[in-house]
Amino acid sequence: MTAPPEPAASVARTLADLARETGATLDGDGSVAVQRVGTLERAGPGDIAFLANPRYRRALDATRASAVIVAPADAGATALPKLVSANPYATFARVAQLLQPAAPITPGVAAGAMVDRTAHVAATASIGPFAVVEAGARIGERVRVGAHCVIGRDCAIGDDSELKPRVTLYARTVLGRRALVHSGAVLGADGFGMAEEDGRWIRIPQAGRVVVGDDCEIGANTTIDRGAIDDTILEDDVKLDNQIQVGHNCVIGAHTVIAGCTGLAGSVTIGRDCMIGGGVGIVGHLTICDRVTISGFSFVTKSITAPGTYTSGMPVMAHGEWLRNAAQLRHLDELARLVKKKAGEDRE
Amino acid sequence: MTAPPEPAASVARTLADLARETGATLDGDGSVAVQRVGTLERAGPGDIAFLANPRYRRALDATRASAVIVAPADAGATALPKLVSANPYATFARVAQLLQPAAPITPGVAAGAMVDRTAHVAATASIGPFAVVEAGARIGERVRVGAHCVIGRDCAIGDDSELKPRVTLYARTVLGRRALVHSGAVLGADGFGMAEEDGRWIRIPQAGRVVVGDDCEIGANTTIDRGAIDDTILEDDVKLDNQIQVGHNCVIGAHTVIAGCTGLAGSVTIGRDCMIGGGVGIVGHLTICDRVTISGFSFVTKSITAPGTYTSGMPVMAHGEWLRNAAQLRHLDELARLVKKKAGEDRE
Amino acid sequence: MTAPPEPAASVARTLADLARETGATLDGDGSVAVQRVGTLERAGPGDIAFLANPRYRRALDATRASAVIVAPADAGATALPKLVSANPYATFARVAQLLQPAAPITPGVAAGAMVDRTAHVAATASIGPFAVVEAGARIGERVRVGAHCVIGRDCAIGDDSELKPRVTLYARTVLGRRALVHSGAVLGADGFGMAEEDGRWIRIPQAGRVVVGDDCEIGANTTIDRGAIDDTILEDDVKLDNQIQVGHNCVIGAHTVIAGCTGLAGSVTIGRDCMIGGGVGIVGHLTICDRVTISGFSFVTKSITAPGTYTSGMPVMAHGEWLRNAAQLRHLDELARLVKKKAGEDRE
Repeated sequence: MTAPPEPAASVARTLADLARETGATLDGDGSVAVQRVGTLERAGPGDIAFLANPRYRRALDATRASAVIVAPADAGATALPKLVSANPYATFARVAQLLQPAAPITPGVAAGAMVDRTAHVAATASIGPFAVVEAGARIGERVRVGAHCVIGRDCAIGDDSELKPRVTLYARTVLGRRALVHSGAVLGADGFGMAEEDGRWIRIPQAGRVVVGDDCEIGANTTIDRGAIDDTILEDDVKLDNQIQVGHNCVIGAHTVIAGCTGLAGSVTIGRDCMIGGGVGIVGHLTICDRVTISGFSFVTKSITAPGTYTSGMPVMAHGEWLRNAAQLRHLDELARLVKKKAGEDRE
Repeated sequence: MTAPPEPAASVARTLADLARETGATLDGDGSVAVQRVGTLERAGPGDIAFLANPRYRRALDATRASAVIVAPADAGATALPKLVSANPYATFARVAQLLQPAAPITPGVAAGAMVDRTAHVAATASIGPFAVVEAGARIGERVRVGAHCVIGRDCAIGDDSELKPRVTLYARTVLGRRALVHSGAVLGADGFGMAEEDGRWIRIPQAGRVVVGDDCEIGANTTIDRGAIDDTILEDDVKLDNQIQVGHNCVIGAHTVIAGCTGLAGSVTIGRDCMIGGGVGIVGHLTICDRVTISGFSFVTKSITAPGTYTSGMPVMAHGEWLRNAAQLRHLDELARLVKKKAGEDRE
Repeated sequence: MTAPPEPAASVARTLADLARETGATLDGDGSVAVQRVGTLERAGPGDIAFLANPRYRRALDATRASAVIVAPADAGATALPKLVSANPYATFARVAQLLQPAAPITPGVAAGAMVDRTAHVAATASIGPFAVVEAGARIGERVRVGAHCVIGRDCAIGDDSELKPRVTLYARTVLGRRALVHSGAVLGADGFGMAEEDGRWIRIPQAGRVVVGDDCEIGANTTIDRGAIDDTILEDDVKLDNQIQVGHNCVIGAHTVIAGCTGLAGSVTIGRDCMIGGGVGIVGHLTICDRVTISGFSFVTKSITAPGTYTSGMPVMAHGEWLRNAAQLRHLDELARLVKKKAGEDRE
């Protein structure tokens, strides 16, 4: 456990530069150079940290960062050179992007990759070692296809997208622009469709596609099944964390975000601007309207038609306490009947 | 989000043909040609749709499909040319298979694949680019091994099976005939076996295998661990969805189906003809008898000895409502005691 | 389902040998040779079985094993040649390791692998077919990198570690010595970090690393995200089962074990010597202290500050029973209020 710290590659920028490029207001010495983002607690010289939540103001006093990003209300709380922004967390995100720019792309097809002669790969795109690009696939400008990716027949990948190593796109999958797909993700596998006949399962070929909009992110080892007949759809700016399962014919509305380990059964429709927590399960054929938040570890068995927050996970208790309560849960209906009967008797 | 619709490859067939090949009864003009399956709502000319649930009869009136598949009781409800079948959904599955036949296999070993000289690959099998087939493996007739698959030492794959790209079979895994294994699946990884000694874990080598019967399907990113000493077994016609975890020494009975994100701890035995929902957890060393249905998101902590449906998931409520109820849950035992005490007092 | 049994490769050893190498006490004929471990129920001639739990003593009478491993208290219960050990399960683990030694390593870089010329690969290490080792990576002595692994820029892998086929390490990931990482695992993918601005998500580059200590095991298709700013850390002897998700900036203490399908949101800190069950969810930014056991399928929403066992999963009931009880759950708060009101009235 003694691995030396290894800073990420980064470039130094002056605070004045960062103010200009992010639209934040410079307050203090603009010639201060920073080259890394940091947390208030751990930042040191050369780092820029941020305060997004006034609760952590105390950390601001103690920070060793060279500069900070704060909201206007917190600007007076520190004498450090600073960027002032109405949305410090967003400004921090933009600063981090400026300090840690993506490595420049090396266009071309790596030795060892196999690109079908009927595939179309933009001259500015990069195809990694051992990647397989099948017939008819179209790879857009400045796309990065990582090592060991498999891009099936007639797939389309929009400009500026990046597939990390070892992503599988089954045939006819469509990815929009600026997509980021992490290692181990599988898009377009057959949905779980079968009919029963005489005690055996008959497989139903899955003819729909997976169609993903612009600016989507798909986490490591996440799986999105192709539609059975119509398509499975992610609209623009959808963000899926790791290890999520999206069943066939789901539709996920724009700007919705889903945390890890959540499973959507088939034909679930989720609206725009939703936030679905981790470890959630959603039963098939339900509709969740726009602007719904579902707490982590919740189970959704009915459609949700009003914006708001919905919850069902039962938090842990000490095991002994749980044993006693769980035993009563099995008799809750009896208990309720007994109480109501008593209440009725007393009223008489 | 403007990707043009891309129909799947398909072949046109007359309704008379389809009736003959599926055993359904032709009712109406048998010369009508169809080339795609569709839903009643979205089908158009050239499509064949189906009605499996009388609840959707209204969609039958409005459909633009060229032909439909219906049960005898619904045959009078439409004037369209039709296939009449006691099991319209199964007939639909067979029709879909006929209209979307698998691409013909191209036998041989792709450039870039590595097949050990002691492996036996049938002459009719196809090995994809960069696949690795290790010593002693046996690949049956007409098997398709996708790109980047790794077939470990002494594995055996039965005739007519298909491994999509990027499947790993650890050494000595056995797959039956007509298996379909999706991308990212891992069969035969070491089970989670270890002994504790002086505050450290000692790894227990896992010597059993994974043995999968005929006609099984294994979903994307599903993992099935090899047995510790004896084997982990899937009997015939078992269907596993995506992202399922099957622990070492589980046995899953024939024709059982398990939905996505479900986890089976070690040494779980599941009977035949079971239906296990998604997101279910089953504790180690339990036995589930034949013909058990477990609802999604349920947690199974005891063996189940009688057929039937079992459930435990708590559905979501509005968050405020949940807060109030969850708080009481922690005091349910007290509440029950209070009620019973009162009931006793009143009785005196 | 008629695959012939295929014994794992193994070597025969005498009981006297095994006693000497494991430190157990030999009781009986030390010249007896065994070559496989087995369960008491299924073992046959040439097998050595073990009894760790006195409950299974009856199986000891009936076993056909050639030798057994037992605790001192059970030594009198069988006349078979035996190893006597205070920790029979640990002795069994060591015996299994002796009978099933890892295949000897074949040092060198396989044909088809791509190793960057600035990477450092120890001469005793083995790099499998189609593996990719990027610039600046350091691969230690006797490390096995399986087929199709991708080792990103500036990664470091400690001596005697093994990566099964198809593991992805993103750039700058650090693995300690004697690590075992199973197929499909992804270490170092970007954490799920983004800021919202004007109804769009801005990606936050993830600059931290994944740093894994010595003697850790990481299961198939498990994902561990890199830190946002600081690192994600697994201390020594941590064991993660399959399909686990570890969010950015988690810290998992030494000797902690986590079962399959569990998800840790970001910045969770888990102490030493914890046992976390399968299918558990832990909310972000919580701290779990040392020596905590969390039962399977539990949901943790608050930090845990005292050692002990914690539980929340609700076990299945027959579906009808569940329907009645779940309906009352939605009114539990009302019920509790009614009971307390009645109790108050009666007291007056």
